[in-house]
Amino acid sequence: MIVRPQQHWFIRLFVWHGSVLQKIYSRLLLNIALSISVIFFLPWYETLGIKLTIAPFSILGVAIAIFLGFRNSACYARFNEARTLWGQLAITQRAFLREAKSLLGENKSQIRALVKLQVAFCHALRLTLRKRPVEETLKNYLTADELQWVTKSHAPCNRILLLMGDWLADKRKQGGISDVVWSSLNHHLNDLSAVAGGCERIAGTPVPFAYTLILHRTVYLFCIMLPFALVTDLHYMTPFLSVFVSYTFISLDTLAEELEEPFGTEDNDLPLDAICNAIERDLQDMDESEQLPEKLRPNRYYRLS
Amino acid sequence: MIVRPQQHWFIRLFVWHGSVLQKIYSRLLLNIALSISVIFFLPWYETLGIKLTIAPFSILGVAIAIFLGFRNSACYARFNEARTLWGQLAITQRAFLREAKSLLGENKSQIRALVKLQVAFCHALRLTLRKRPVEETLKNYLTADELQWVTKSHAPCNRILLLMGDWLADKRKQGGISDVVWSSLNHHLNDLSAVAGGCERIAGTPVPFAYTLILHRTVYLFCIMLPFALVTDLHYMTPFLSVFVSYTFISLDTLAEELEEPFGTEDNDLPLDAICNAIERDLQDMDESEQLPEKLRPNRYYRLS
Amino acid sequence: MIVRPQQHWFIRLFVWHGSVLQKIYSRLLLNIALSISVIFFLPWYETLGIKLTIAPFSILGVAIAIFLGFRNSACYARFNEARTLWGQLAITQRAFLREAKSLLGENKSQIRALVKLQVAFCHALRLTLRKRPVEETLKNYLTADELQWVTKSHAPCNRILLLMGDWLADKRKQGGISDVVWSSLNHHLNDLSAVAGGCERIAGTPVPFAYTLILHRTVYLFCIMLPFALVTDLHYMTPFLSVFVSYTFISLDTLAEELEEPFGTEDNDLPLDAICNAIERDLQDMDESEQLPEKLRPNRYYRLS
Amino acid sequence: MIVRPQQHWFIRLFVWHGSVLQKIYSRLLLNIALSISVIFFLPWYETLGIKLTIAPFSILGVAIAIFLGFRNSACYARFNEARTLWGQLAITQRAFLREAKSLLGENKSQIRALVKLQVAFCHALRLTLRKRPVEETLKNYLTADELQWVTKSHAPCNRILLLMGDWLADKRKQGGISDVVWSSLNHHLNDLSAVAGGCERIAGTPVPFAYTLILHRTVYLFCIMLPFALVTDLHYMTPFLSVFVSYTFISLDTLAEELEEPFGTEDNDLPLDAICNAIERDLQDMDESEQLPEKLRPNRYYRLS
Amino acid sequence: MIVRPQQHWFIRLFVWHGSVLQKIYSRLLLNIALSISVIFFLPWYETLGIKLTIAPFSILGVAIAIFLGFRNSACYARFNEARTLWGQLAITQRAFLREAKSLLGENKSQIRALVKLQVAFCHALRLTLRKRPVEETLKNYLTADELQWVTKSHAPCNRILLLMGDWLADKRKQGGISDVVWSSLNHHLNDLSAVAGGCERIAGTPVPFAYTLILHRTVYLFCIMLPFALVTDLHYMTPFLSVFVSYTFISLDTLAEELEEPFGTEDNDLPLDAICNAIERDLQDMDESEQLPEKLRPNRYYRLS
Repeated sequence: MIVRPQQHWFIRLFVWHGSVLQKIYSRLLLNIALSISVIFFLPWYETLGIKLTIAPFSILGVAIAIFLGFRNSACYARFNEARTLWGQLAITQRAFLREAKSLLGENKSQIRALVKLQVAFCHALRLTLRKRPVEETLKNYLTADELQWVTKSHAPCNRILLLMGDWLADKRKQGGISDVVWSSLNHHLNDLSAVAGGCERIAGTPVPFAYTLILHRTVYLFCIMLPFALVTDLHYMTPFLSVFVSYTFISLDTLAEELEEPFGTEDNDLPLDAICNAIERDLQDMDESEQLPEKLRPNRYYRLS
Repeated sequence: MIVRPQQHWFIRLFVWHGSVLQKIYSRLLLNIALSISVIFFLPWYETLGIKLTIAPFSILGVAIAIFLGFRNSACYARFNEARTLWGQLAITQRAFLREAKSLLGENKSQIRALVKLQVAFCHALRLTLRKRPVEETLKNYLTADELQWVTKSHAPCNRILLLMGDWLADKRKQGGISDVVWSSLNHHLNDLSAVAGGCERIAGTPVPFAYTLILHRTVYLFCIMLPFALVTDLHYMTPFLSVFVSYTFISLDTLAEELEEPFGTEDNDLPLDAICNAIERDLQDMDESEQLPEKLRPNRYYRLS
Repeated sequence: MIVRPQQHWFIRLFVWHGSVLQKIYSRLLLNIALSISVIFFLPWYETLGIKLTIAPFSILGVAIAIFLGFRNSACYARFNEARTLWGQLAITQRAFLREAKSLLGENKSQIRALVKLQVAFCHALRLTLRKRPVEETLKNYLTADELQWVTKSHAPCNRILLLMGDWLADKRKQGGISDVVWSSLNHHLNDLSAVAGGCERIAGTPVPFAYTLILHRTVYLFCIMLPFALVTDLHYMTPFLSVFVSYTFISLDTLAEELEEPFGTEDNDLPLDAICNAIERDLQDMDESEQLPEKLRPNRYYRLS
Repeated sequence: MIVRPQQHWFIRLFVWHGSVLQKIYSRLLLNIALSISVIFFLPWYETLGIKLTIAPFSILGVAIAIFLGFRNSACYARFNEARTLWGQLAITQRAFLREAKSLLGENKSQIRALVKLQVAFCHALRLTLRKRPVEETLKNYLTADELQWVTKSHAPCNRILLLMGDWLADKRKQGGISDVVWSSLNHHLNDLSAVAGGCERIAGTPVPFAYTLILHRTVYLFCIMLPFALVTDLHYMTPFLSVFVSYTFISLDTLAEELEEPFGTEDNDLPLDAICNAIERDLQDMDESEQLPEKLRPNRYYRLS
Repeated sequence: MIVRPQQHWFIRLFVWHGSVLQKIYSRLLLNIALSISVIFFLPWYETLGIKLTIAPFSILGVAIAIFLGFRNSACYARFNEARTLWGQLAITQRAFLREAKSLLGENKSQIRALVKLQVAFCHALRLTLRKRPVEETLKNYLTADELQWVTKSHAPCNRILLLMGDWLADKRKQGGISDVVWSSLNHHLNDLSAVAGGCERIAGTPVPFAYTLILHRTVYLFCIMLPFALVTDLHYMTPFLSVFVSYTFISLDTLAEELEEPFGTEDNDLPLDAICNAIERDLQDMDESEQLPEKLRPNRYYRLS
């Protein structure tokens, strides 16, 4: 994620980081090159009877803008839902710990064991969503036995939830908590399960690929054909207008594609590292741990991973 | 479902699989043929006083784009809700099993019986939604008595839920669980019931047919009349622009129709086989089964059924 | 509701049933008549200095399309919410019966009594929403005393819910179920109450009438004035374009009005009869009744009431 | 609220009540006057080199229509949420009474006392939202002590909820109900609390005022400048088109403003009197009261307050 | 927040406070200056072959309006969600206090202690969201020990929730309340936790920065290039139309940016001070406190902080 810096409106016109310019500048240069060559070849191909007017592009432009707006909404909704799920993760973990502490707070070692499982769950979810190995990180939070049992499964998060369920069942069997209290605490485990399942759904089922394909195609064809339509009216100004229109359409198409998979590590993806770090800090602070892990901050390009 | 491949933006302009091109190419060829004949007959029918300008098409184009955008939203919302329901199914099944294990985990055979019922429910829902026979698949998970009782009903999912309810009522009667715990477990059965009911609703009530009809009609009439309006300005370029505009409108109309019934087996429908497979693998993994069923993967056309 | 038939795209251009054509064809004929007379009177009224260009209609057309799109969304949302509420009704009734059976299943006559009340509730809701008398139907499900008590109220659904509440309170008083179990079963009654209340809300409060009025007016004025603007450019083609634009706008305006009140019996309203029939069949099947009521099917015009 | 009358489509073009015409007709007359004077002064100010073409108005018109569409959605969503909250109020009150009756039904006087508190809550909410004195109405439902205690607070609804909480706590202390049942009944009080809080939020926080201001301004400036742009093309027809476009934009701007505050007493606001009346009738009917209050009906201008 | 004053529609055209004019007037003046210079330099740069027509701006204008509409929706949704969360805070606090009073109402000092914690939570949330120090305010509500323990954490809200959890656990341990009642009260603490977590999410994750950047850029480039396109047609009228179009686009861009971070202290941000004040007044009124804090009112510029 790019953290929004405070900027004067004029400066912002020229910002490079955080826009998608670094991804699409080569395509825009191609567009400019095409526009310039169109100016030179205009006299020649007009003799062939080829001419394009801007009127049909007006219809197409509006239609593409409407459909692109729809796709942007769908992709942003995925991004937003993903963020809400991770927000829910933080809420649930804190509420779970608060309840556990106020009910079983005397036994500090058990609470500490719980906190370790909670943090492990967050990291495991983050790493599986990003398709990275979990072992290196989880060994800081799990015992060797637990770690082995968790990592031999294809779904480490599920196994950690089972461990948390066992932790809770233990408390119930030892008689420390009644069924009503068990049910209240267990409810949080179900919420964790729902968060993990929701994230898997977003990661596993993209916006129907045909949308991506149809819009990609129409946007690019539109931008390629536009200079031919603009040149009769605008002549030398063709490249300026052409690249401006292309930037508007191509950048939004590209951004939608980034947002569609919010768990990646691109500029506009969710800062899962920072969210995990914040949850870990909150939980350890609630547990009155001596030393909290340091807070993750954006790098000098305003980027938070 | 078509799994989104990583592709260079330029390659993507020419991709065949996953777009709806294979469905509509014949209509686009018709459109091209019509455009070409319009060019030839132009001198003749202009003598009859027939002329079409592009201005009214501009109004129509925007209006159709707006209404098509609305219908796409409605159809995509159905697709998305269907996916969310199946995500909920996975979440509920796993949470149910986790709770059951941590409460009744000693009795491994009972847990295994539960897992079989859970998997049977998923397959039964998938097969009834796709209007396929359930018996062949369910016999791997149900006893002969259960199978007979389930398949003689018009609603197998309901019957499997009744079996799960009986399984749970047994545990309660044997005194293993209190009413509070029963209520917590039973809650998951209600969630399963809600998933099945939600899927039935989506399968049974399409977007009002008049939307489909009105938009289908206006889109196709628009594409048929468009060459007549374009030809006076564009002449030889008419077929290119005409087919481009037609592709934009017709492909989105066709895609919306595919998404409207997300439980089918077309390119952009939900991969119910793969989701069922994933749930089965997760449940068996949680039950520490020896041998998990193999993971379903997309075929070489990036297609996941 | 019109059940979506499988049709070739070309056939679908000429379908009569299910589109709103049968409702608006007279208005479209009027529009054609007006367009033709405009062609004839053009020379005369041009001498009066009256002329209309298409440019202001372009602004108006887009604005009306946007506002019509908004109204369509609002009306479709009502239709969709109504359908979801009836889906919820089916889900709740089945979940209620499943729970009741697994807890009190030995006593078959009591379960049968419950099923009768459940079905009566669905029919009562359907009939009151459609403003039809309930007595004829309810006498198949209620005892004479119950029927009299229910029908003398202005709100029969409420009374049937009270009967279901009494049924449940009886079970609790007889000691068959604990307070926890009572609470779980009672929860379903609250859900039924919410469904009935939600349907009443939709039936009782339309989309603000001014939206209907303003859009109706602007759409019709637009269609009336359009031929005057088209005629100078299109001449003999005016009626074709004019009726095409009018069809697009008027049919969507009319469809929105149908969807706004989803409990009626028009072509695009909800098939409440069929939904009630399906719920009754499901409940009786779960109760292992000998003879299920026959399934309601669409008539030969693909219509399901 | 204006109740939607059944009208022929042609009649509806000329309806006065329920549209916002009575609010804006003076502004439309001003617009006509301006258009006429523009026709007369055209030759004079053209000599000054002042000319306006319609092209920039086309851009502006679309942009304003889009933003107006957005504001209409936001305002309608408030209206709709407010209506849903009042629907929830009816649902909760009926469910609460049903539960209380089936659990404590023997004691009729206590149930009657509860009904009075319930109705008092609805009226208090209605009157505080409309900023009217509550005392006159509440004295029909509360004892003198209660009335005094309730009205001396700035938040009468809260106090009535406290009275209902006391009523419930009494039943619990007297041993009539267990904690589980208390919790179930108390849940409804929380729902009432949520309804009141939701309504306060809608009443207290409008759509950001800048939206109202920016759109109001652009809409009116657009309508004022439009005749100058239309006159060169349309000449004598300018007033017709100008007032038509103005009606479309101004009426929707004005309607959005009405819907934004749904608890007022304008034509398109919620009929809180009628809703309260309906709830009171339902509750008394469930309590088998002898004489129900008469049903509120729309007045002869189809208006329901 | 600006409180909406009652104003005549004509007056409203000239209102300064509450619109975003004070923020953007310098940019609009720049636009006017540019337009005027364009008029003077027109003859000169036309000799260079530079010309711009309005047609491509028409495509761009619509596209930008659509994307700006999308961004406005996204930002307004954040504003609205933030307001709903604070509304939920008020609802939960009042419901919590009502329940606590009706269950533990005899012990007035304990209730008073709870009220202090509740109010402290609201203020702590408000101040951390606005990144202000909490100590000064919280010392009015917390004991010295509590204050020290709360303020030494990086997350004061969490710690206050822990104190509330301890308060509740105390009551449970003293035997005053059963587990069922504890669970009911504890549920409200979870709701408070969810409100705090939701607000943190909104404050911590803006709309993807690339949206802000892309739209900012296209809007400003559009406004800068517009005078060049308008001048050939409009000549002396260029500045009027150019600044009008620019106002429409720039003001909505700027407003969206304000709404995106709803917890700030700008004109269109949420009035957190007033909401906290209202919650405090409500809670103290429910506790029948002698002296309520005075109600916060808008200042003379209709501004509520």
